[in-house]
Amino acid sequence: MNLNYSVNNINFKEGTVIIAGAGPGNIKLVTIKTILAIKSADVIIYDSLINKLLLEYCKKNVKLIFAGKTSTNRACSQQDINEWLVKYAKKNKKVLRLKGGDVSFFSRGSQEISFLKKNKVKFKIFTGITSAQAALKEIEEKVNKKRLCLNLITGHKQIKTNSKKINYKYLVNTKGKILVYMGVSQIESIKKNLIKSGMRKSTEVSIISNASLENQKIHNTKLKNVVNFFKDKEVKPPSIIIIN
Amino acid sequence: MNLNYSVNNINFKEGTVIIAGAGPGNIKLVTIKTILAIKSADVIIYDSLINKLLLEYCKKNVKLIFAGKTSTNRACSQQDINEWLVKYAKKNKKVLRLKGGDVSFFSRGSQEISFLKKNKVKFKIFTGITSAQAALKEIEEKVNKKRLCLNLITGHKQIKTNSKKINYKYLVNTKGKILVYMGVSQIESIKKNLIKSGMRKSTEVSIISNASLENQKIHNTKLKNVVNFFKDKEVKPPSIIIIN
Repeated sequence: MNLNYSVNNINFKEGTVIIAGAGPGNIKLVTIKTILAIKSADVIIYDSLINKLLLEYCKKNVKLIFAGKTSTNRACSQQDINEWLVKYAKKNKKVLRLKGGDVSFFSRGSQEISFLKKNKVKFKIFTGITSAQAALKEIEEKVNKKRLCLNLITGHKQIKTNSKKINYKYLVNTKGKILVYMGVSQIESIKKNLIKSGMRKSTEVSIISNASLENQKIHNTKLKNVVNFFKDKEVKPPSIIIIN
Repeated sequence: MNLNYSVNNINFKEGTVIIAGAGPGNIKLVTIKTILAIKSADVIIYDSLINKLLLEYCKKNVKLIFAGKTSTNRACSQQDINEWLVKYAKKNKKVLRLKGGDVSFFSRGSQEISFLKKNKVKFKIFTGITSAQAALKEIEEKVNKKRLCLNLITGHKQIKTNSKKINYKYLVNTKGKILVYMGVSQIESIKKNLIKSGMRKSTEVSIISNASLENQKIHNTKLKNVVNFFKDKEVKPPSIIIIN
């Protein structure tokens, strides 16, 4: 496929960082903009959830740094990542931080952004498809409800402790659809909070694991059964939980 | 730019419809998947908010149908669009419905989906970048707050009358960031509802008009001033309103 874009189209300057969303995993759900950034970068620091085939677009002499988690441990600390970004930018490289999903929708780019600001390194964000979009469209193709409100929340414990807690009572009463990121390990607490806040036990719950990938799985259950369901089906991250 | 994708990669069958999100307008924020659909389609029914340069990827003998609004009137009715989709699919064409943003995030594809189902026409949804993503990243590049909850709502009156009303009291109390689609004409009522529901009058409001495009404008004001601000600055759709 030939496209009328050149890498100049994105204005990736030496000594700057682009933090780009690589989408939910499917290699065709990446944007042109992110591909151009991959083609142009001198250094790419990438997460485990990105599609590794994307790295085939990079330059021959690129420096690739894996910054993700393996099944047993993290390849590096957040502080390592922050420092690499600044180090290579100060060496006048075009530094690409390639993250899964969309940088602004719960991808935990905020620590990196703070560190870049503190160190006066210029950066740009390139938007990507977030996994909740890939998950929601699977449901939309089947059920077809109009909605006025979508509530996107993160169930991740680590983030929870650093910031305000979610008020489930209010959340439930917005009557919006709730899309939960990183909720697998928190499913018991999420279920308890939703029911305590007045949500019907028969509320439909869909779980989309590995959204957009070949090993994508879609599960449907009721809120009351969700905890046992997760155990029976061995639901694992990355999964988006959609509460209708 | 040369990419290793062929149009076969998306499995666009004759007699089916793909409803694809073309993103917020910037031609580089489209996904590979949507470009492949444009390259492969026999018929493309497109909205006014898509970037017209995308149509340059289409086949020579494609049938292009404009289904958007002009400044003075609609080019066609929703019923026309529904019927075209079915008509051309039944003629065994590959029919692409190309919409701005993301089909599952407030793009009003639901009537078309219902009609396709009723007429037993097979369809798929291709996810796109939604304008709220392009808008939010502009704010993220400057302010950098962690959040556990994002509330995406639509301010559009037409949809409101067809479905449950938003309960602003609960919405405000989720403490999430609120991103409003199609809220320009409703700004007075949105402001009133938010303040009545206990939101502080000094809450920061950002307005991103034409997000991702060359004529993008970012405005910042306070909730208490928002109505006059919209008048003074002549804020027009398409705009995303972000309430922090």
